[in-house]
Order: sequence, then structure tokens, then C-alpha cells
Amino acid sequence: MPVPEGRQPPARILIERPQPSVDCGRYPAKACVGDEVPVSADVFRDGHEVLRAVVRYHGPADKTWSEAALAPYDADVGGNGFEGSFLVDRQGRWSFAFEAWADAFGSWRTEITRKLDANQEDLTSELLEGKAIVEAVAARAKGEDEDRLNAVLAEWTLDEAISVDVAQAAARWPDRSLGTRSEVLEIEVDRVRARYGAWYELFPRSWGGLEGTAAVVPQLAALGFDVLYLPPIHPIGVKNRKGRNNAVSATPGDPGSPWAIGSPEGGHDAIHPELGTEADFDALVKTCREHDMDLALDFAIQCSADHPWLTEHPEWFSQRPDGTLKYAENPPKKYQDIYNVNWDTEDWRGLWQALLEIVQHWVRKGVRVFRVDNPHTKPFAFWEWLIAEIRAEEPDVVFLAEAFTKAAVMRALAKVGFSQSYTYFTWKYSRHELIEYMVELTTSGMQDYYRPNFFANTPDILTEQLQHGGPPAFHARLVLAATLSPSYGIYSGYERFEHVPVKPGSEEYLDSEKYEAKARRLDGPLLPVVHKLNMMRRAHPALQHLANVRFLGTENDQLIAYVKRHGADTVITVVNLDPVLVQEGIADVPYESGLPPAYEVRDGLTGERFTWYVGRNYVRLSPGGAHVLEVL
Amino acid sequence: MPVPEGRQPPARILIERPQPSVDCGRYPAKACVGDEVPVSADVFRDGHEVLRAVVRYHGPADKTWSEAALAPYDADVGGNGFEGSFLVDRQGRWSFAFEAWADAFGSWRTEITRKLDANQEDLTSELLEGKAIVEAVAARAKGEDEDRLNAVLAEWTLDEAISVDVAQAAARWPDRSLGTRSEVLEIEVDRVRARYGAWYELFPRSWGGLEGTAAVVPQLAALGFDVLYLPPIHPIGVKNRKGRNNAVSATPGDPGSPWAIGSPEGGHDAIHPELGTEADFDALVKTCREHDMDLALDFAIQCSADHPWLTEHPEWFSQRPDGTLKYAENPPKKYQDIYNVNWDTEDWRGLWQALLEIVQHWVRKGVRVFRVDNPHTKPFAFWEWLIAEIRAEEPDVVFLAEAFTKAAVMRALAKVGFSQSYTYFTWKYSRHELIEYMVELTTSGMQDYYRPNFFANTPDILTEQLQHGGPPAFHARLVLAATLSPSYGIYSGYERFEHVPVKPGSEEYLDSEKYEAKARRLDGPLLPVVHKLNMMRRAHPALQHLANVRFLGTENDQLIAYVKRHGADTVITVVNLDPVLVQEGIADVPYESGLPPAYEVRDGLTGERFTWYVGRNYVRLSPGGAHVLEVL
Repeated sequence: MPVPEGRQPPARILIERPQPSVDCGRYPAKACVGDEVPVSADVFRDGHEVLRAVVRYHGPADKTWSEAALAPYDADVGGNGFEGSFLVDRQGRWSFAFEAWADAFGSWRTEITRKLDANQEDLTSELLEGKAIVEAVAARAKGEDEDRLNAVLAEWTLDEAISVDVAQAAARWPDRSLGTRSEVLEIEVDRVRARYGAWYELFPRSWGGLEGTAAVVPQLAALGFDVLYLPPIHPIGVKNRKGRNNAVSATPGDPGSPWAIGSPEGGHDAIHPELGTEADFDALVKTCREHDMDLALDFAIQCSADHPWLTEHPEWFSQRPDGTLKYAENPPKKYQDIYNVNWDTEDWRGLWQALLEIVQHWVRKGVRVFRVDNPHTKPFAFWEWLIAEIRAEEPDVVFLAEAFTKAAVMRALAKVGFSQSYTYFTWKYSRHELIEYMVELTTSGMQDYYRPNFFANTPDILTEQLQHGGPPAFHARLVLAATLSPSYGIYSGYERFEHVPVKPGSEEYLDSEKYEAKARRLDGPLLPVVHKLNMMRRAHPALQHLANVRFLGTENDQLIAYVKRHGADTVITVVNLDPVLVQEGIADVPYESGLPPAYEVRDGLTGERFTWYVGRNYVRLSPGGAHVLEVL
Repeated sequence: MPVPEGRQPPARILIERPQPSVDCGRYPAKACVGDEVPVSADVFRDGHEVLRAVVRYHGPADKTWSEAALAPYDADVGGNGFEGSFLVDRQGRWSFAFEAWADAFGSWRTEITRKLDANQEDLTSELLEGKAIVEAVAARAKGEDEDRLNAVLAEWTLDEAISVDVAQAAARWPDRSLGTRSEVLEIEVDRVRARYGAWYELFPRSWGGLEGTAAVVPQLAALGFDVLYLPPIHPIGVKNRKGRNNAVSATPGDPGSPWAIGSPEGGHDAIHPELGTEADFDALVKTCREHDMDLALDFAIQCSADHPWLTEHPEWFSQRPDGTLKYAENPPKKYQDIYNVNWDTEDWRGLWQALLEIVQHWVRKGVRVFRVDNPHTKPFAFWEWLIAEIRAEEPDVVFLAEAFTKAAVMRALAKVGFSQSYTYFTWKYSRHELIEYMVELTTSGMQDYYRPNFFANTPDILTEQLQHGGPPAFHARLVLAATLSPSYGIYSGYERFEHVPVKPGSEEYLDSEKYEAKARRLDGPLLPVVHKLNMMRRAHPALQHLANVRFLGTENDQLIAYVKRHGADTVITVVNLDPVLVQEGIADVPYESGLPPAYEVRDGLTGERFTWYVGRNYVRLSPGGAHVLEVL
């Protein structure tokens, strides 16, 4: 290959490791409205030229690119990193790229300054070179800068040449014609609810249907909840209906599982008549809106044996050789009350369209949050398309992925568009596991696209820890969930310390609300603590972000402690993971925390005030107890 | 966006994290002829289908793609990884990609096996489904497999259906029509010398010129050296020649620095008359070849004040405003004997071409290795082009980058094509630093493209450790270099423990050979150890690779120990980093080493034999002493 073509030699600056980047730019990173998105890249070339870099960015429908300056941040330790940020002030798809160029004047100034510092006497030649450079700058400059630079050129003394204001003027008129640009990367910007919110899950049939649910919304709002999440509200199949405690057959009066969707009364776009009417639903939506709460529905792509689609669209389901449709299985388990759609059906396009229309139906009825049941058994490409379609029509919609499966699959769901995701949090019991997992969530790259929702329990998950730990365990886990993750949730029953499994070794509740209605009220003993935590979360931006966490030494493995900072807002949390014994230890607040040597803190859970210090602070906590300290 | 077009739904399998991959495929990874290149990727989709994956690959000039099967390797810990390898048996650019598909028969077989294990009785439907799948397989199959499958179909019993040989037959005829392929990645395959070799650096003028150098080649070969590296052998400038100990001016008789290239007698394509003639050079090349040694020349893109190019092509150099050419500077340092080319010259294409022709000149005279001086002050794009050009003509050529600069720059030089690179090794003194650096080189991703050369000293680098540690330090550093890195080297003088700096705090040698000739012979006291190490390296493939190292606990920070394995070949090294005191400790050989509970070892340095064990082995070493134990 002969020498490359072109009047100019190929670009000399390399831009590497652009961040944030997900799978080499295949997927957008995530941010929320109001975020200053931190960006960085390594920028370097041969030789010693001074380099400048900017991030160029634009939001949806912007006609031009904006820019923000980047600054070197690790040069003192031999790095080539440049970092900066830009504000994303509205929802939608943003684009950004890096641009870097050699700063001729900056390089000249650096060189001549070094020579001056070394007392080199004859700088005639250097001054002449600098003059040529400044002449080029002056030719580009306008306004006051142009005047200033021309004035300097007229006299052209060393002192003037290296003066700060000449340097600043020159910096405003760079020659970027030989610069280098990186590839364009993208960021999907959501409303803040996609990152931050307190969730409460309840089964309407245990609260007096949709009307009873609407009646409890004001109390939930007062408790500080942001999202009310309902398991499916659709008609429930009769054939093969499950009975209490997952009995294979229902006895008369058993309501069945809400996830066995569909009956002659309708499918995914209908409301279970026993829960109420369309008007009741509209009223619930209205009540939530009036109390600044989001209503989240459950989107479960599966059908009961009575779902209209089984007769209207049998081709959307898997058939046995004898022509009958196949119910769901995870061998050897059988779910006779559930039929999964067949994604390989020839009419996959009709199926996809029908599912889209289901979601659109509820969006048009005012729903802006969907908790998606088991998305990992549905194609990634389907979610990527559906989520994009829905958000193109209504950018406020938030999708929560409920997938407890292999890590790569959970991550892929987040990459293809899920706004937030359940996690392995419920099974991280010990200090070591919790820190290891949080470090993964906040530093492995997941922090760029995977927003966790730390539900402390779900109708399917009553962990061993909660079964045996009693109220102290419930208290500790609640504090962890609410302070470690911007989004967290509880399923009703948690606040009453419900802890009995259907049998030893199982994570299923005894007399699970999945299979029977209960008589529920919002009066559990843990609610005052929930309220305090939700109020602290609202008051402290530090608790509304994920990656701003730093774990502290405690000198006791039963204690976990961490500091979260956002700007000047600081919250320090200490939790006793032992549900049985009092534990003592310390919280070692590091100097890098930026706190003064002594500072006042107030425990949001008790109102107590302490003086804390940088360094080791003695702590003593009851079983499952915690400090959640706001630095005053 | 309406539902995606197409008869088939979009691909369901995701292939992530393909390895090896350098900067998202922008650069090829590296391997050597004869390597089984390990590859891996995460492969997964929605649901529970069994997936199969292969790596497709082809070498230069191959007309078709070959394939190698991949196997899951981390499923038991919740991973989706598939790994495998393929043999690269010749030099040049290889391509590879991953392909994965759902295995319908394997999925069916897994499901029905689970149902059998759970004693499910009625499997009529499952059997019918399986029959349909096997019918499809039989339609694709040929030969014995076709017969076998048709025979099974004729009877179609459960036992036959799930038999191993039917499973194997089905696996040989997969339906890959709905599979997914990853992007294509590349590997640049070199000859083995690019990875592995022992280097000896000498200044010919201290050995009797080129003729004297040729005379010492047999002895170097007997010592086990693979590469003889010479600083520049070109005419040296007279004007502004440096004197002894880098004096600004030379006194008569001072030979000057070999890197001040060029005189009226010629430039980069000429031989210094005092070193010998073209015939002497040809004889040296021949002697090296006869002794299976590579001759490495120094390629330094810079010119003395007398280089012909300054008058023939002044446009290739930077000019001062007064028209004079600028000598090299790194302010405030001045290098009046050196002129750097100006890469921004309008005739950059003429400059690049001239530099290419220099390298081509020496390649055509039989040189196959170039140690490149300070490549980091020359454009990356230039190196990427030049290296590719040279290797297209002569794939055997190896380029060693001598760049001691920021890490990102050193890595970028390797990415754009340098076959191997100097490293920070000389400045890694302590156990902690050595392990940290080796972990970076072998696990950060650098192992895919950055081949280290652990020179223990160079004419520019006499470290504090060597200045103060005496012969024990020289011994320890030699063992480290020769056993940690497949490529290592010493500069003559090392084996004589030369350790006096020009002044305290400097890394320059007193009376540096850069500025004066010496009277050298190959009789340094350390040479017997060099010989032993080189012979062990030749005998043990474990020492010819980089990333196959595992560090062992020693219970003493003055001791560093590591095991290297390649297949069944195992070498365990222990080094006392203390140059003053005897040190005791252990070498804790882990169970994962794969060694039996007790095994015989022989110390290649002393011939002593020991019985060693899995677990803790007592060691006691003299200052700077070492064990290099081959497991028998």
C-alpha cells in the first residue's frame, strides 16, 4: 500500500475508551433529566504537544451541537484522561462525541515557560515562532480578543506574549481544523422516576378492589411512596385455576392467580369484574396523579386456559402434535393454568402488534409504569422494539424488568431498554456479599445502563433471612434497600413482618396472596420506619443516586457502613446485619469524604444528634438496628 | 416504527464480549505460529433452549472458513460463557467470528430427560414432538447418520430416542439457518520470535566493529541468546558531536553517540566506516543466520547535524524563523547533536516513503528485527502504515518499541503493530509492584496485543536498585526478567555488574558507552547463570509464554514466587529480592496447580533436587538468590 492519500497526513490524535459506552456503542447509556452526565476519554498523540478536548452533544430535535470543555484529570499519575460533563435537560435520545486538537499556542507557551524557568537567555527564535502562532490566532479571533491579540502582536514582548490574558484569548480561538473526532455515542434520558422512587406493591383484591386501592393512595403518599404497583388486574382463568397455596385445583371461591390472565370476560386489556369497572380504574389513575404517585401495572405475557386469544389466535401458541395447546412448563414443573405464546409462530408480526396494543391501551388510560413479568423468557428484540415504540409515543413510560436469571441476561434486558431492573439484592445477606454486589453495580459498567430496584420482598420471594430473622431482619433489610438504592420497594405484608414460608426451604409465603385474597390495611408496625426513610430519601439527593456510595471499615463483619454524597449533601448509614445480637464496631469515615474533622449528624430514624469525626466513630446497634445519619 | 419486516423474527441469540478483542475490533489481537488461540464469548437468548456455538476462522489466503466447537465453561456459576480455540499455523492476518444457534434436538432431549427423572408417566406428546424434530434432522443427515436416524424413526421408542448415539448423530447435523453471527475480529500472527527470545545488546565499536561482533556470535549463541541487538551502526555526525559522559562538545577521538546518525559518509542506509564494510555486515548477517540468531538493528528516526537529509531535504525538518533548522529539545534540555524530522512537513509523503525505504534497505540486506528508538514521538498512523508495509513484504520482521512514556501511549504503539515493547519492568522493585504489574500485563487485556520485553538494563537505564544492590541485585533481576517474560534482554556490562552512575540520582552510566568505545569481551561473571537460564527457557515451554503465571504466597515480602505451566510443563521460581540479607519463607503451591501432592523438582541454577509439595514449601535464599525449579 503506497503512502496514504491526502494533502494532510492522517490524524495524529487518538481518542480511546470513550465513556459512557455500552457494548462498543451498540446500546445507549442511561441518564435522567437534570443529570450532569459525566463523560471521559483518553486523549493523546505522539510527542509533547498540549492537547485540548471537548465533548460535543445534542439532545433530541436540537439542530446544532453544543460543546463542553474537558479537562485532564490524571496527568499527575501518568494518565491521558480528559473528563467533563454536560447537562441533559429533557427526555429522549441524546448524542455525544469527543473532539480533540493540538493547541499550538498552548504548546509554545509551555515550552517557552520551561526555558524561562531554566534561565535560558536567548529566546529570540522562540519569540518569533510564537509571533507566527499568535498571528494565526489573531486572524481567527474577533471582537475584543482580536483587538487584544493585534495589540500584543504590534509590540510583541516576552511578558505580553506569555501573559495570562493572551493565553486565555488564544484559547478562545483554537484551530481545530486538524483535530480528531471520536465516534458518536448515545444516551437515553428518562424522567427521574426511572432512577428514583419508593415502590409499594399490593393486590387490589385484598384492599377492596380498585376503589379500595384508590382509598389507600393518600396514606401511601403520606408515607412517602412514589409508585403503587399492582399485580395483574385482568380477568383470571377458571379452567385449571390454582387453589390456595398453589393447589393444582381450585375449590369454589378460590380467586386464582392474577398472573393466569384471561377469561371469557376478557384478556390483557380488560379489568377483572371483581376488582371494579373502567370508571374505577380511571378514578384510581386520577387519585394517584393527584397525590403525585405513579401507578404501575404488571405486564405478563402469558395466558390462562380461558384467555380469548387461545380461541381467537391459537396460532400464537405452541401446539402439541395432537393439536392441543401446550401449557407452560419448566420441566419437571408444570403450570397448567398458564399458556405461553409461541414466539416462533408464523404470525409473529401479528403477535408483536397485539402485545404492543395491549401496552398502548393502558398507556392511553394513563399508566406510565409497567413492571414486566419474566421478560427473560421473551425475545430481546421484541423488548427493544416494544419499549422504543411505547416511549416514542410517551417518553414518560418506565419499564421495570422482573427477571431473576443469569446475570448476562439481566444485563441484556437493561441494555435493550428496560428503565430499571430487579436484582440479586434479596439474596445478598452478609457484609461481604452486599459490598461485592454494590461494587459490581456501581463500578463494573452496569452503572451506565442498569438501574436497580431493591425490592426487599416480593410475593415470590420470602428469603430465609426474613423467615428466621424476625423483625430485626425486616428492619435491617428495609434500611439497606432504602439507602443503598435510589429505587426500592416492599410488597404489602413486609411491614407486618410476615415471615412464614409454605414449607421449610421454600421462598413461597404460606397462604400466599397469589392464590387467595387477604384483608389488608395499611397499619403494619414497620410503617413509621418506612415513613422516616422515605422522608430522608426525599430530603437528601445523596440517596437518590446509585454510584455515589463508598463503604467504610467497621471492624466487625456484622456491621456494614457506607457514606453517600451528592454535592454537599452527605448521608452515612450503619446497619447491624445480626438479627439476634447487639453489635459494636466503628464507622471509619475517610479523609476523602471531604467532611471536616468534626461535624454534627442527626439520625433520621431516632432524631438523635451526635458529633462525628473523620476517622473512627464508635457505633453500637441493637439487632437489625441502624443509624441513618444526615450530616448537618 | 411498525413491527420489523421480514418473514422470520429478528435473531434471538445475543453474542457478547467476544474475545480476544482490542478496542472493539479496531486493532487485531496478536498470536504466534503454532498457538492454539483461546477464544470466548457470552452466548445466550431468552428462555431455556440449549445453545450451540462455534468459532469460525480462516487464515490468510484461505478460501473457506474452518470451524471449531465451543463449549460452555461457567454455566455452573451462572455464566453464559462459551470457550474454545483454534490453531494458527502460519503468519499473517487471521479472521474469526462466533456463530451460535438453538439446538432443537438437544433442548427436547434435556426436557424429556428431566421429565423422566421426575417419573412423569405419560410422555406420548413429548415423543411425538421429538419425532418431528428428528425427522428434520434425518432430512439433513447423510451417510451412516442418515441411516441410523431413519432406523430410529421407524421404531421410535423412548430409549432409542434419548440414546447417546442418536444425540451424537443429531449434533452432527444441526439446523443453523436461524443462528446468529458475531462481527468478524482479527488476529495478527507472527513467528514465535515475536513473543519469545533472549536478547543481548552490544555496541559493535567496543567489540572490534562488525567483524569483531561476528566473531562473538558463536559464543552468544552457545550462551543461549536468540537475538543480537546493535545500537545504530550508521555514520555519526561530527558537528555538535557529544563528548564523553554527554559532554556538550567532543574532544578529538571521541566517537560520539550512535544515535546522532548521519555524516558526509552517509545516513540511515549507510554503515559507519569505522565499524566495517558492507561485506562485513553481510558476513555478520550470515553468521547470525548460521547460528540461528536474529540480528536486530536500531531504527532511530533522527538526524545529526551532518546528516545528508539536512541539505538534501531541509523541508523535512523544523525551521526556526531565521531559516536555520531546529535541533531536538525537551525543554529545558537541548540535544544539539540531534535534529528531529517535522511530521507536519508539506512533503510528509516523501518523508514517509524515504523512511520506509530505509527499513526496506536493511530488510533486503537480511535484517528481520528492528528495535525502534522512541517511537512515541512519531505519529501512530505512520507506524501503523510502515509496519504493515514491511510485514506485507516480509512477514518475519519483528518490531520492538522502545518507548518509556505514558501507559496509554505505550499500549497504542502495540495496538498499531509493534510486535513487542519495552515495559516499566526495570522500575518494579518490590514484590508488590512486580505482582501488580504482571497482573496488569497478563489479565487487563494487554496480554492480547502487548508483548513485553524485559530488558534488565539498557544504555540509558541503570536503576538505583542495580546501583546499590551489587551482584545480588543483578542476579535477582536477571532471574526475574528471564523467567517472568518470554522475551528478555541484557545490555553488555550487565554480566559484569557495572553499576556506577554518572552522578548520584541519575540512571546514566558513568563513562557511558553511548559516548565512548570500550574494550569488551564476553567473560562477565554472571554469564554462567545467563547460560543456565537460557537453557531452561529453551527446554521449558512454560517459560516461553506470558500469561501462564500464578503468584504464590511466600509469607515474606522479600520473597517473590510464581509457578508457570504450559500443558504438563511446570516451572516454579522463587527469588529473594533482598540484596543484603538471607531471607526465609515459603512457596505456597496451590491445589489448582494440578501438581500431585508430592513431586520432584530440580533447581536449574544449581542442579540440586528436592521433594516439593502442594501447599507450603520452606525456602531459604541468599541475598538476591533464587530457585528456578523444573518439576520432573
